[in-house]
Amino acid sequence: MKIKPPRGFLFSVTGAEIKYRGRNDMALIVSEKDATVSGVFTTNRVKAAPVLLDKERLRYNKTARAIIVNSGNANACTGKKGIEDARVICSEVARALSIREKDVLISSTGVIGTPLPMERVMPAIEELARKMGTNTLEDVANAIMTTDTFPKAVYREIRLGKITGTITAVAKGAGMIAPNMATMLCFILTDLSVEHRALKEALKTVVERTFNLLTVDGDMSTNDTVMIMANGLASNRAITLNSRNYRIFSKAVFEVCDSLSRMIARDGEGATKLVIIKVKGAHSYRDARVAALKVANSLLVKTALYGNDANWGRIIAAIGATGIRFSEQDIRVSINGITVAKRGRTTHNDHLASEAMKKDEILVEIDLGAGRFSERVYTCDLTEKYITINAEYRT
Amino acid sequence: MKIKPPRGFLFSVTGAEIKYRGRNDMALIVSEKDATVSGVFTTNRVKAAPVLLDKERLRYNKTARAIIVNSGNANACTGKKGIEDARVICSEVARALSIREKDVLISSTGVIGTPLPMERVMPAIEELARKMGTNTLEDVANAIMTTDTFPKAVYREIRLGKITGTITAVAKGAGMIAPNMATMLCFILTDLSVEHRALKEALKTVVERTFNLLTVDGDMSTNDTVMIMANGLASNRAITLNSRNYRIFSKAVFEVCDSLSRMIARDGEGATKLVIIKVKGAHSYRDARVAALKVANSLLVKTALYGNDANWGRIIAAIGATGIRFSEQDIRVSINGITVAKRGRTTHNDHLASEAMKKDEILVEIDLGAGRFSERVYTCDLTEKYITINAEYRT
Repeated sequence: MKIKPPRGFLFSVTGAEIKYRGRNDMALIVSEKDATVSGVFTTNRVKAAPVLLDKERLRYNKTARAIIVNSGNANACTGKKGIEDARVICSEVARALSIREKDVLISSTGVIGTPLPMERVMPAIEELARKMGTNTLEDVANAIMTTDTFPKAVYREIRLGKITGTITAVAKGAGMIAPNMATMLCFILTDLSVEHRALKEALKTVVERTFNLLTVDGDMSTNDTVMIMANGLASNRAITLNSRNYRIFSKAVFEVCDSLSRMIARDGEGATKLVIIKVKGAHSYRDARVAALKVANSLLVKTALYGNDANWGRIIAAIGATGIRFSEQDIRVSINGITVAKRGRTTHNDHLASEAMKKDEILVEIDLGAGRFSERVYTCDLTEKYITINAEYRT
Repeated sequence: MKIKPPRGFLFSVTGAEIKYRGRNDMALIVSEKDATVSGVFTTNRVKAAPVLLDKERLRYNKTARAIIVNSGNANACTGKKGIEDARVICSEVARALSIREKDVLISSTGVIGTPLPMERVMPAIEELARKMGTNTLEDVANAIMTTDTFPKAVYREIRLGKITGTITAVAKGAGMIAPNMATMLCFILTDLSVEHRALKEALKTVVERTFNLLTVDGDMSTNDTVMIMANGLASNRAITLNSRNYRIFSKAVFEVCDSLSRMIARDGEGATKLVIIKVKGAHSYRDARVAALKVANSLLVKTALYGNDANWGRIIAAIGATGIRFSEQDIRVSINGITVAKRGRTTHNDHLASEAMKKDEILVEIDLGAGRFSERVYTCDLTEKYITINAEYRT
């Protein structure tokens, strides 16, 4: 799919050999005019330097002009030097683009605990500024990859009256990625005009229902970042909170983030299958969410799915371990449409289900029979390759 | 090590082909006289039939005579039929031994969701009763194994005045074990006389500090059971709560359970290394425990340990994800004696530590620098073999 960029955003990428050779590992996203901005970041107590810097900037600023991104090094657990490096990079971007330093945001992803090779990063910024506008969003999606096996970008167009707006996003994979790598990053760009409060609320709500319901290995990164920029070049009347247009807009943002979540799950390290866990009949929304995430994070469930084993006992045991409200005898489990457990007991369909599981997408549906709440989580199977990728010594 | 059984306990084992062929999969433990008994069971909301039955019996009885155990089938998620089967087995054991049915306890471990093959189990009980006393505790340790690669038994002798008592225990592995298997089981037998309240308190306290600080894959089983029987044949004055002898006794029970915990961690599915996570300098005891368990359960930490990668960034990130109190710049991490991070930053010793990790035992020490509390957790590394074992279809 060709990715349509929103109006007024320019891109450039380059290779700074931060960790990888022979590929691009730095990207610059620039809005032609001030864009309203909001961000959601990792809740890990250990936050990477770029996350700390962005959070500080977004506390005081509602607009921004540029996002500078690198892969190969997370600039996490790097102390004061890490913060200083992030500041220096933003400052250099501002100088090269002739914009204010506070209008530059920064994201990093890669190795933890190693300082950025500033001697290679700094000259690359000059190059990125010079090339501005000569690359595409697909190039950006490629440059920010670490162990991702494919670039991730998606867009939606929405009509608000006579005006068409575009919401486009790029992301890189979740799952704390390869040897010492961290981070999922996502940048959402739109040419719509959106009031800051509305932008912030839409992002927060959508992230909670998409990226926060996505798990590869249950390990939370120090760098997770989702940022949205709205530059208003579509010339619509600014979208305000709780308006009809807000609902249309936030639905589109949801769809974009939902698509990216699926892609990230499918591209989980070593994964062979995209897995969708749907829990319904929960006593509360929280119960549904807790149950779905617990099943998605169970090593035994994930390995069984990899082996096409319709092992509902592991699913029920995982839910039982959470302490949420349900009775074993009310539970129903189906996998790719085949009911494998009913009233907490086998339906003797395991072999049928095993056949139905020989696909690269698996839908696990669990009805707890304890209420009316539901939730859905994306994840992937767990394979020998995940172990191999993550056991390799950092080189 | 030759395992010394306590006085007055008899053992027998047999093969009932419940799942495995050509090996023993049923065991019977009998005390010659009424033994004071206590048990600690899984807190999983989904409890196997034998767990439900034992819990019911131990609510009303403070003594027991026999424990009947099978491997190969967990009798979990088997509904009313499962409970009925467990009752019938206990009843048959009582009949064959001429004891009261309520004095028989039962444990099962193995496949979830499949009813027990009663047609093979029932004749085996007759055999077990006939052979009573002809087998050893090592035979029991072997018969209760599932994917364990070695039997687990240990004993301690303690002197109380002129009297010597023996505390002996057998266990089978934790980690929700192989294709659809569940459960860690542990039976502690002693010839000491211990008042029921003291026995219960000692068991509860020890389990909390040993088996509850042991993790292989973070999946909680439906069958976890630890039971202790004290038959008093050592003829000591009954040990009472909070007495001096209680402290000696509970220390010995701790040592026995601690040894078994180490063995179970070392024998985690596919594991190549026993891993000991020590957290100190925590703001509270709960913080120390939460941090140690989180690190022990992190897939990224476990795969790094497997790869001899002194990846302290993953350790710090895992702790950061818990939300406990600490500052990144106060943290210190050492692995097998090599300090790899100090004040939250690299000491550039990663390669040295990597060399020191080429052993089958790894000690990770984390000083949070946030207080004076500490805790220790046993776990193992995570390897491709864990995946292979658990992805195989149940056959």
